[in-house]
Amino acid sequence: MKVAGVITEYNPFHNGHKYQLEQIKRQTSADYIVVIMSGDFVQRGEPAIIDKYERTRMALLSGADLVLELPSVFATASAEFFAGGGVSVLKNTGVADMLCYGVESVDHELTKLVAGVLKNPPAEYSASLARLIQGGMSFPAARSRALCEYFQDNYDISLEKLDAFIASPNNILAIEYEKALMDCDITGFPIQRVGEGYHSTDSTSEFSSATAVRGVISTLIDIDKHNTITNMQLDNSWIFTKFSQLMPSDCADILADCILGGHIVFPDDISEMLYYRLLTWKDKGFAQYSDCTKELSAKIVKNIYKYESFTQFCNLLKSKNLTYTRISRVLTHILLGIENDDFNICMDNPYLRILGFKKSSGDLMHLLKKRASAPIITKVADAPYELISKDIFAADLYGRLCHSQQNEFTHGVVII
Amino acid sequence: MKVAGVITEYNPFHNGHKYQLEQIKRQTSADYIVVIMSGDFVQRGEPAIIDKYERTRMALLSGADLVLELPSVFATASAEFFAGGGVSVLKNTGVADMLCYGVESVDHELTKLVAGVLKNPPAEYSASLARLIQGGMSFPAARSRALCEYFQDNYDISLEKLDAFIASPNNILAIEYEKALMDCDITGFPIQRVGEGYHSTDSTSEFSSATAVRGVISTLIDIDKHNTITNMQLDNSWIFTKFSQLMPSDCADILADCILGGHIVFPDDISEMLYYRLLTWKDKGFAQYSDCTKELSAKIVKNIYKYESFTQFCNLLKSKNLTYTRISRVLTHILLGIENDDFNICMDNPYLRILGFKKSSGDLMHLLKKRASAPIITKVADAPYELISKDIFAADLYGRLCHSQQNEFTHGVVII
Repeated sequence: MKVAGVITEYNPFHNGHKYQLEQIKRQTSADYIVVIMSGDFVQRGEPAIIDKYERTRMALLSGADLVLELPSVFATASAEFFAGGGVSVLKNTGVADMLCYGVESVDHELTKLVAGVLKNPPAEYSASLARLIQGGMSFPAARSRALCEYFQDNYDISLEKLDAFIASPNNILAIEYEKALMDCDITGFPIQRVGEGYHSTDSTSEFSSATAVRGVISTLIDIDKHNTITNMQLDNSWIFTKFSQLMPSDCADILADCILGGHIVFPDDISEMLYYRLLTWKDKGFAQYSDCTKELSAKIVKNIYKYESFTQFCNLLKSKNLTYTRISRVLTHILLGIENDDFNICMDNPYLRILGFKKSSGDLMHLLKKRASAPIITKVADAPYELISKDIFAADLYGRLCHSQQNEFTHGVVII
Repeated sequence: MKVAGVITEYNPFHNGHKYQLEQIKRQTSADYIVVIMSGDFVQRGEPAIIDKYERTRMALLSGADLVLELPSVFATASAEFFAGGGVSVLKNTGVADMLCYGVESVDHELTKLVAGVLKNPPAEYSASLARLIQGGMSFPAARSRALCEYFQDNYDISLEKLDAFIASPNNILAIEYEKALMDCDITGFPIQRVGEGYHSTDSTSEFSSATAVRGVISTLIDIDKHNTITNMQLDNSWIFTKFSQLMPSDCADILADCILGGHIVFPDDISEMLYYRLLTWKDKGFAQYSDCTKELSAKIVKNIYKYESFTQFCNLLKSKNLTYTRISRVLTHILLGIENDDFNICMDNPYLRILGFKKSSGDLMHLLKKRASAPIITKVADAPYELISKDIFAADLYGRLCHSQQNEFTHGVVII
């Protein structure tokens, strides 16, 4: 039995994701695809647009055989820890032969070469990195530049090629995957992406990005008015038609139901709760929260009276060496109570939370039960609470935002 | 110089309050009236309908000479501690000769008699009280019954008279005031109330209750839609006409501005933040919060997934021996972080926070500065933060709810 793994967000699932799953089956001849998917909060440091159960259903209807939750501690982390956490979950399943990931252009050798440098940084590279950060550059920018400098000096790779390679968020993630895979017998398998880039907002393409799809959803919903539909004339079939150009029709159906049911969540839906959290904690400071620093903590406290909303506050706090995403991630960590130690705690106390699976993947499930090196959780009530309390908290919070009638204890595993 | 004190909420100020201030001047010949007023959260355990600065302005325009903030720890406490805290603030001013309070029917002797029993409970009364509470009665009901039993046995007072006397929330407060006044040289001065009772919702009377006035405001505003005006045709003069029947015209003007400016706050506006707080704290439990018990804490945790809104949750949790107000007060204490020890801490660390005064009350202000036995705070930035941090927190939280452009550090004292 051959099993391929994917680490992803599906926020929401679209044609590009469907294409990737098809390519995995075609290129790897995998019998099954295991998806490690972010829960209700995603790597950009914000809530997902629809909840993890609906996104699981989308994945299972479109080629995935088993969906496991990427714990919120990993799902909201920067690329390195997102990838590291995701790979650790995949490793713990004991069933995956390879990890497939999307790249702008397949250059497996270069990816592994860069990963090697990041894994065991040569002194020359480390010195450049330190110098550039000290010079006021943000960490991602400094890392790119330091890598370019290092490879230019030591390898026969053109600067343009390297620059373009490292500039892509998907390639950065690919490098982190390869880095995390170095210690285990799961093979990295890059898959050429199609369509628009990660940040693209073009929603006319058949392969629009998730960013673009979320953009289309936001035009339908008046964010200021508690997620009521802007144009009440919209009905399910109108919405379905709109989205079936961007995602598989099964998924468009699910999305249409979410939109009409008031289950869409936008980043600023966390504004009220986040303000409360910042207010409650401001006297203690925020330096203990993951990705935060003493300086950023002080900046948050200093600007608290300028807080209007989550996204406005991210924009207010961002600077030359602090990206929007870094800020949003920190604020989401504060909201979810994810602290500096939590990455290691989560690595040391692994679990496999099953969000859903296909009835037809009995053999895979059987193998999983046999080989898993971490507890498998199908029913939250039966799991050790301490182990998954951060994910339950994130889901409880999200459940209110998306007006869910269910909670982690009542929602069953998605089976199709 | 003769100075009368009043402890109050003015939520919002109405004709009954105006009448009371007039009667105080007439009946006591006081030169000045000092008002100790709840800040942004009130005794029912909910946010005030408009902010403390606007309510201060209303009071100063209608007969008050100086308004001091009743600290949130006292303002949200049950009658005993509300009265005890209020009297302690008044005492600390050093200027008040008397405390005037409204009663349904003036019976100063009976009020003081009951206060004496509560202050130094005779064994017979205590035994009845314990027995009734053990029997499942709520504390307020048990106290009323125990008082009736005690007085019936020991005094020549008709049961009907006593029953009616104790049944009134204003009389209960009067009794608590007299109890708190026993240790000091401020004299209690009951003033006959006019118009509708405390809980009345009749808004046709010239002397409608604050409850009724809030009811009228709520009919103008669509609570579900983020406090937008239901009928956008409403203009200032229409609203003014509506409310000038219920309150002095100066106050109706202020209220109309608040309504049109989106500065009205309803109890359920705290729902989102409260849910977040309950979620964050549920693993630790809530027994340390003021007025909460281990049983109530467990009940909150057990029912958390049934939480929809603040008022819905209060209704859900209330029972035969736990009144709605008890629950709302506990939830507000949880929201504001007011714990069991805070009453004593606040009594031991008093302060006089000036919200506003009349320019014409120079002599009073001069006397206050001379006689005050607690620090006078006119500028929050200059005050010891620890001393007033709970009030700042409450105001910061409220400021977001009422869409204030100001905060505690930028808002000046109201001077008219």
